[in-house]
Amino acid sequence: MIDTQRLSTAHRLIKPFIHRTPVLTSTSVNHLTGNTIFFKCENFQRTGSFKFRGACNAVAACAEQLQNRGVITHSSGNHAQALALAAKLHDIPVFVVMPQTAARVKQKAAESYGATVVLCQPTYISRQETVARLQQESGAVFISSADNEDIIAGQGTAAIELIDEVGSLDLILTPVGGGGLLAGTALAASDLLPHVKVIGCEPEQVDDAYHSFNSGTRITEVRGNTIAEGLMPPLGVHPFAIIRKFVDDIVLVTEREILHAMHYIWERMKIIIEPSSAVAVAPLLNRRLKISGKRIGVILSGGNVDLDRFFAMLTCSL
Amino acid sequence: MIDTQRLSTAHRLIKPFIHRTPVLTSTSVNHLTGNTIFFKCENFQRTGSFKFRGACNAVAACAEQLQNRGVITHSSGNHAQALALAAKLHDIPVFVVMPQTAARVKQKAAESYGATVVLCQPTYISRQETVARLQQESGAVFISSADNEDIIAGQGTAAIELIDEVGSLDLILTPVGGGGLLAGTALAASDLLPHVKVIGCEPEQVDDAYHSFNSGTRITEVRGNTIAEGLMPPLGVHPFAIIRKFVDDIVLVTEREILHAMHYIWERMKIIIEPSSAVAVAPLLNRRLKISGKRIGVILSGGNVDLDRFFAMLTCSL
Repeated sequence: MIDTQRLSTAHRLIKPFIHRTPVLTSTSVNHLTGNTIFFKCENFQRTGSFKFRGACNAVAACAEQLQNRGVITHSSGNHAQALALAAKLHDIPVFVVMPQTAARVKQKAAESYGATVVLCQPTYISRQETVARLQQESGAVFISSADNEDIIAGQGTAAIELIDEVGSLDLILTPVGGGGLLAGTALAASDLLPHVKVIGCEPEQVDDAYHSFNSGTRITEVRGNTIAEGLMPPLGVHPFAIIRKFVDDIVLVTEREILHAMHYIWERMKIIIEPSSAVAVAPLLNRRLKISGKRIGVILSGGNVDLDRFFAMLTCSL
Repeated sequence: MIDTQRLSTAHRLIKPFIHRTPVLTSTSVNHLTGNTIFFKCENFQRTGSFKFRGACNAVAACAEQLQNRGVITHSSGNHAQALALAAKLHDIPVFVVMPQTAARVKQKAAESYGATVVLCQPTYISRQETVARLQQESGAVFISSADNEDIIAGQGTAAIELIDEVGSLDLILTPVGGGGLLAGTALAASDLLPHVKVIGCEPEQVDDAYHSFNSGTRITEVRGNTIAEGLMPPLGVHPFAIIRKFVDDIVLVTEREILHAMHYIWERMKIIIEPSSAVAVAPLLNRRLKISGKRIGVILSGGNVDLDRFFAMLTCSL
């Protein structure tokens, strides 16, 4: 289990690289939900998501030893971009393995931060083989998107900043996919606000964390699909152990609730959040939590949304 | 001509009601343009635009005398919502005249802030007649969206806050339509930073301010259409006088440049700005201003965009 001391070490290490993201509030949201809600805006984080915190910590923690070897991961999402920028800032080579089927825009995003993108077949075996081959050739160290103690410690720094800024809270909500953010947040909260409840929020369609948490046995395979792509990976081993110990509950939300929450936040707060972020807002809007008069922190995990179709539509209307 | 003293009075008067909006910066935008740009985020203002500042000042300035009479305006845009909320907060009745052709969502928005919306034919004459009739019946005072000294003084408070927060600037950019924001900003700047340049930005398609400014004769009729709906009204009499004296230049941008700037800001800054705001960003992205190494303030005027089609598209994909 990670010592909470590692979170403050991580924070010190990554501070020169990360944005201290703002905490926003919304009169409309407070009025609608009957609570006071503090949104930690990791959608404004570098590379557009909290993933940069963990990636930066994982790279910074062993930058010297990695110098000539580099890092490698498989991801077509936010972790790929985050690791690419973190490595670039530390002058370390970075390889990202993506399935051929990944949107071209995701490949370009990772490349724009300096990654060498290597495509593989869209199968588990091809992915493992490709990573293994590249590791053998380059000596690059594999950095998982969530199942890594340095990653978890880095993700916990968002909650450290949130609590530092707003003080006491009754409840903190985060989305849960691989579990790095939820585990890091729970660790930070257990240290700084021992009485706060921490709840993970998960799409009903990919409810492995919910069942793992409630049964005590980690589910390793995820079936189903969700608009909150970032939450598709199964819960990692390290996050699972922390979540079982420090998290109070995991709640589920439907795809429609995710889209509704995303729409509401865009419209009222004028900020762009991705579906994964909306997963942690939905339980407040659908009132399934049945709480009022509380001080609640919500980690808005990211803001990477493909806007091309929307702007193509607007351009057509010119 | 308005005394700049009136801007600080306005600021004192409206402070209890307005949000002090954040000033954001973006590494990407700075890198791309070669300048340091400070975005004053009036898209986060109450009712979603800077218009609330002026409306609030106009109502607050004569709240007692308006108590039983109320206020009236014609607008289907941001001024309607702004005046509605300003009046509601001062417990004053408010009438908004809109053409029948205005989107139902705009009518609902004004009503949601407590306005009595009265529809008229989509002609200039019907609008004037409807306003006159309602004024006669209720005694309501007409509050123009830009051609009113209290409105101008209120709009200038955004620049006061911007300068207070970031200090010296070389240049301030705002969009220009009716001219309230540009005039108020120029007044504030002339008082606080005598050496700063102030430039208005206008869509090429509705270039009345540009020609009025350059010829010295105010054009009173606007032809043409723009995606930046908020900038359709012609330059008002009061704003024109101030702009002629205190503004350094007016630059034009195309519809495509507006959409490109809007897309870029959404994607990189993860904030929602409306096309009118993007008009003041476009001259920096298209490099038509040919400046670098400068400290530039940009007033992002609002964030009211109809997102329903985009979310309908996403819902269909579920």
